[in-house]
Amino acid sequence: MANKQLNNLLDNLKTKNFDKIKTWLDTVHPVDLAEILTELKDEEILAIYELMDYEQLAEMIEEADEKAQIRLLKLLDLDEIIQVFSYMSADNITDIMGNLPFNETKQLLKMMKEENAGTIRHLLGYYSDTAGGLMTTEFIALKENLTTTEALLKIKQIGPKTEIIETIFVVDESKRLVGTVDLRDILVAPDDQPLKEITDYNVISVLPGTDQEKVAMIVSKYDLTVIPVVNRRGVLIGIITVDDIIDVIEAENTEDMFKMVGINDEEQVISPVRISIRKRLPWLYVNLITAFTASFTIGLFEDVIAQVVILATFLPIVAGLGGNSGQQSLAVMIRGLALGEIDFKNSKETLFKEILIGLINGTAIGIVTGLIAYFWRGNFFIGLVIFLAMVINMVIGALMGSLIPLGLKAVGIDPALASSIFLTATTDTFGFLIFLLLSSLFLKFMI
Amino acid sequence: MANKQLNNLLDNLKTKNFDKIKTWLDTVHPVDLAEILTELKDEEILAIYELMDYEQLAEMIEEADEKAQIRLLKLLDLDEIIQVFSYMSADNITDIMGNLPFNETKQLLKMMKEENAGTIRHLLGYYSDTAGGLMTTEFIALKENLTTTEALLKIKQIGPKTEIIETIFVVDESKRLVGTVDLRDILVAPDDQPLKEITDYNVISVLPGTDQEKVAMIVSKYDLTVIPVVNRRGVLIGIITVDDIIDVIEAENTEDMFKMVGINDEEQVISPVRISIRKRLPWLYVNLITAFTASFTIGLFEDVIAQVVILATFLPIVAGLGGNSGQQSLAVMIRGLALGEIDFKNSKETLFKEILIGLINGTAIGIVTGLIAYFWRGNFFIGLVIFLAMVINMVIGALMGSLIPLGLKAVGIDPALASSIFLTATTDTFGFLIFLLLSSLFLKFMI
Repeated sequence: MANKQLNNLLDNLKTKNFDKIKTWLDTVHPVDLAEILTELKDEEILAIYELMDYEQLAEMIEEADEKAQIRLLKLLDLDEIIQVFSYMSADNITDIMGNLPFNETKQLLKMMKEENAGTIRHLLGYYSDTAGGLMTTEFIALKENLTTTEALLKIKQIGPKTEIIETIFVVDESKRLVGTVDLRDILVAPDDQPLKEITDYNVISVLPGTDQEKVAMIVSKYDLTVIPVVNRRGVLIGIITVDDIIDVIEAENTEDMFKMVGINDEEQVISPVRISIRKRLPWLYVNLITAFTASFTIGLFEDVIAQVVILATFLPIVAGLGGNSGQQSLAVMIRGLALGEIDFKNSKETLFKEILIGLINGTAIGIVTGLIAYFWRGNFFIGLVIFLAMVINMVIGALMGSLIPLGLKAVGIDPALASSIFLTATTDTFGFLIFLLLSSLFLKFMI
Repeated sequence: MANKQLNNLLDNLKTKNFDKIKTWLDTVHPVDLAEILTELKDEEILAIYELMDYEQLAEMIEEADEKAQIRLLKLLDLDEIIQVFSYMSADNITDIMGNLPFNETKQLLKMMKEENAGTIRHLLGYYSDTAGGLMTTEFIALKENLTTTEALLKIKQIGPKTEIIETIFVVDESKRLVGTVDLRDILVAPDDQPLKEITDYNVISVLPGTDQEKVAMIVSKYDLTVIPVVNRRGVLIGIITVDDIIDVIEAENTEDMFKMVGINDEEQVISPVRISIRKRLPWLYVNLITAFTASFTIGLFEDVIAQVVILATFLPIVAGLGGNSGQQSLAVMIRGLALGEIDFKNSKETLFKEILIGLINGTAIGIVTGLIAYFWRGNFFIGLVIFLAMVINMVIGALMGSLIPLGLKAVGIDPALASSIFLTATTDTFGFLIFLLLSSLFLKFMI
């Protein structure tokens, strides 16, 4: 469908059918418009810009993804950018400016009205992965001593400039947040009812320095559509809306999955190869070191393998199943920690549960493997050794799969960080060690 | 903090200080209340129920997690449950009833007012992982021929019963959805302005059968706080609010990470051991089969290993690095598909990119490994063979890490399903095969 729209647009551009393009611009969704425009050449985009007003440009650029935002903005000169910004909310302007070269940011700030520049400068000061970096400063705050009629009047005045309107924040004389009022309650309240009577004083807020992952967890837990940000004195300084929270949740989930397998930061599908390599290669070298550790472990038993070469064939089974049993525990732990289902309070319980599962699954898998090995190689002791090695290694897998993320979290590191690499390092090394140690113990029965 | 509240509550219960408990009940957040109550014994919960009204009970049960919901509800008799339900929205009642035994659901439906029962029966008919299963039927729909003054009057009447109020849906004479109006626009509009003039006719909707993952993707892409559900004739039949979408996103993310390592469905940290085993063990058996394939591959070269035993020590390095390089591609692909960044259109491009990354990283890692092997074992050909095997296996890893999720998606299966197990099966088997084949070619130079 987008393709058809793109072709129509190109046709209309070629035939200079600008009226048709104008009509289309009024109906297309800004998100789709941004997607379609980024398929065009610069001069084609500029021709379409001629047909758009600043408000349309603002809507489109606001909703485009990061990469497109920069490209679409670079085609405007600084004066035009200032005009476009006048239709955007402060948090979006901040996000966009955070991605521009520092010189441009500085020039733009100079050109803005002092009041707006102050807000942006303030927001740029917060780290982008904290509540302060996510929040916007456009919200409705009403003094608690108003009546509902006065409140409604205020809302009609401020409303169009704010991002969210159904939740109204109530503050005291010192602008400290004291509660919230639902717009629906104001609408149905009798005239001149004191606002205090319908205020919900049970309000959840975060500090500007609160980590975005923590903010997302609170919003998700309490089913909020907006969360207020207050400073240490309790003064309301901003709000975070749920659409920004969804982006945080998706980004954090991507980060968890990537970190687990050793990819630094968030890598997007569109990243150039050079950047992908810089994000992945360092962890592959770490993986190489752990792989050599496992390799040296086998090297210690070269004489054992020389006597019973078939032992080499069982090495990947012991290591592989231990690794996979551990991966399962790892996935449960990482998600449990991310969703707040696991904390240090119940971690012991979870750890015991994972070890028990490792033991049961290990026994179930170990028996089958031992029997197959026994019948394949016709030697009871080979079957016994592989059974024992698998049970032990699958318990180690479950134990380490749980301990690694808990340990990383305990020392303040992301629980997912390269956890998959550290896990297989343990299950490989210990798997080989246990299997070959047991084999050398029973060596005389195997030859 | 919750612990302190729990202890206070227990103290107050023991000393029968019910007034204090009542005051506390008015200030505690329903989510926290549910969490605290589930720590108590049944008779203690019942004592606290005595102090709560049906509205408080409804709020608490609505916000509790699934397991707590059932426990907290079971303590009420059916009459009381009906009273509690009267304070809940239809979608929440449906969710709760979907988890109750079928007999109770049937009895409850009989006891409800016919009108409400009809709605619930209708909602229960949709699969819980579709738009129909997520939607609620409480929304504000206004006819497009109203004026803003008439609209505001209607909103004041219906408002308190709906879930979301800032977005008002506009329908035609046949109840077909035609657009949306922002409440803020109605509030600031001049008296008696036709609703048509401020209606946004560019509205995005989904069908009741649309998969919840797809719904979440649309909501996230277009930054919506609510999405309307229409039937095939375009009639508005329900809405889905963003708080339910967040739950979907988190559930889908958990599912992806779990499926990747071979855990069926969503397993929660609180699942009993028995259920965890049933979800994980089948995939461990699949893993066992693939591990034996890798094992048989080594078995084919037993005579080669017997002549150069040190080859056995390099097996885990070739397999491990190929596997990890593949895991990185796998993670990028699974997230790219989940976020809609990758589709079949750009999949070829992504595939080439991953293979190129595999080749570059493989060469970088292969050279180092080859050199270490050369100096460690003092044989140039061992270094050469391991270098070649690693480059090839890391390219295979990247290739398979990309192809497995794409292939699963192409045949309509979840792209994450056991992909990690299938991936390591390939990188293990091919890694051993390539390394041992090359070794047997250069065998005479290694002895």
